[in-house]
Amino acid sequence: MSHPKYQGSGTQAFLKKSLTSFSDVTWHCLDEEYPDQIIDVEKEKKLLQTHDRIIFQFPMYWYSAPASLKKWEDEVLTRSFTYANEIGALKGKQLGIVTSLGYPAKEFQAGRAEGFSISEIMIPYRALAHRAGMQFMSPLIIDQFAYMTETQKAKLLINYQEYITAPYPFDFTVQQKWISTQLNKLAANISPKQEVTLRLIIEQLEQNQDDLDSLKWQVKLMRQEEEN
Amino acid sequence: MSHPKYQGSGTQAFLKKSLTSFSDVTWHCLDEEYPDQIIDVEKEKKLLQTHDRIIFQFPMYWYSAPASLKKWEDEVLTRSFTYANEIGALKGKQLGIVTSLGYPAKEFQAGRAEGFSISEIMIPYRALAHRAGMQFMSPLIIDQFAYMTETQKAKLLINYQEYITAPYPFDFTVQQKWISTQLNKLAANISPKQEVTLRLIIEQLEQNQDDLDSLKWQVKLMRQEEEN
Repeated sequence: MSHPKYQGSGTQAFLKKSLTSFSDVTWHCLDEEYPDQIIDVEKEKKLLQTHDRIIFQFPMYWYSAPASLKKWEDEVLTRSFTYANEIGALKGKQLGIVTSLGYPAKEFQAGRAEGFSISEIMIPYRALAHRAGMQFMSPLIIDQFAYMTETQKAKLLINYQEYITAPYPFDFTVQQKWISTQLNKLAANISPKQEVTLRLIIEQLEQNQDDLDSLKWQVKLMRQEEEN
Repeated sequence: MSHPKYQGSGTQAFLKKSLTSFSDVTWHCLDEEYPDQIIDVEKEKKLLQTHDRIIFQFPMYWYSAPASLKKWEDEVLTRSFTYANEIGALKGKQLGIVTSLGYPAKEFQAGRAEGFSISEIMIPYRALAHRAGMQFMSPLIIDQFAYMTETQKAKLLINYQEYITAPYPFDFTVQQKWISTQLNKLAANISPKQEVTLRLIIEQLEQNQDDLDSLKWQVKLMRQEEEN
């Protein structure tokens, strides 16, 4: 995570809190870790090597991450370590982007105030992933957090947890399974009476998933028959 | 200019030297000016306001400028100062990019090692120019300076001086006029015998320019006749 004023950021505090129940996730704030901006390159390389999904998380400043992440890139991601055709230490890992916008997401397109799409603005990171042989994940965009309703925040929380921990790409089946795992985890930590209700919801979800799988199978068979 | 190791950079020394005869150009190295990385924001804003063409000059690190330029952007280019629809202090000015590549320029395209074009990689700067109401100049790419021949370096010197000082866009007529101005400046500083030769060259160049203008005029007339 890169944010020069991380202590005052409501968005980052919200996101950080939502990860407390995930033991296999490392929250790593560059500005907090290196207040004097002297980066421990070896430590950073080790962190990269021991994680499968690397997420660059930041408020968008002038169409990219704040300077602390750029400094980290410049110093830690040496050519020989990173390039897929050299040591390729990040090869096969995933690169995700979680970024918060000060302007509405809909302004990011040709003819609107920002003029370019998020997908275009992300090209330097996409090029980095390409060079490193990493899978680039479609960015998670946080659109004006300060103006979000409680419902929107709850939805963001789920989307964020999923972005950090669920298998990628997030198709419907993956999402269903991930939600049911999370609910099972939750069920272990609530009162017996609440648990009964929750187990019923989970059962229903899993039943729906089975029905869906069977429907998908039928559609596949029908397509094959059409083609023959 | 942004380069963490500016003192050891042959490319930057070469470029800097080539500007010594231009009195209306300010060479401003961020890493030299702010070794402790504490930026004088008011001074920087004044510099921006007193210049018509702003050039971001840097070696390309991970598809953008080194961290020192990003820090400068984050701190100096405040929203109200920069956005064209607010104070718009940079409105109507030009934004140029001079960047040196560690890899051959031809690798920057789909299906090659870098995967994206320079034009795509520049989108964050193009978006900045767009937001600020600035004219974005087609970047000047320095392709592996270390491997350049003397002739290639001489050509780069002319292209660079032109990029910094000639009216934009650089069409053929603009280039001719600019070259003849530079030669006239040179003629004032050489031996009388050399000067005679140089004046003859300048005369010839200017004669060529007149011939060209007359040819262009004839073509224009012919086109108009065709259309009637």
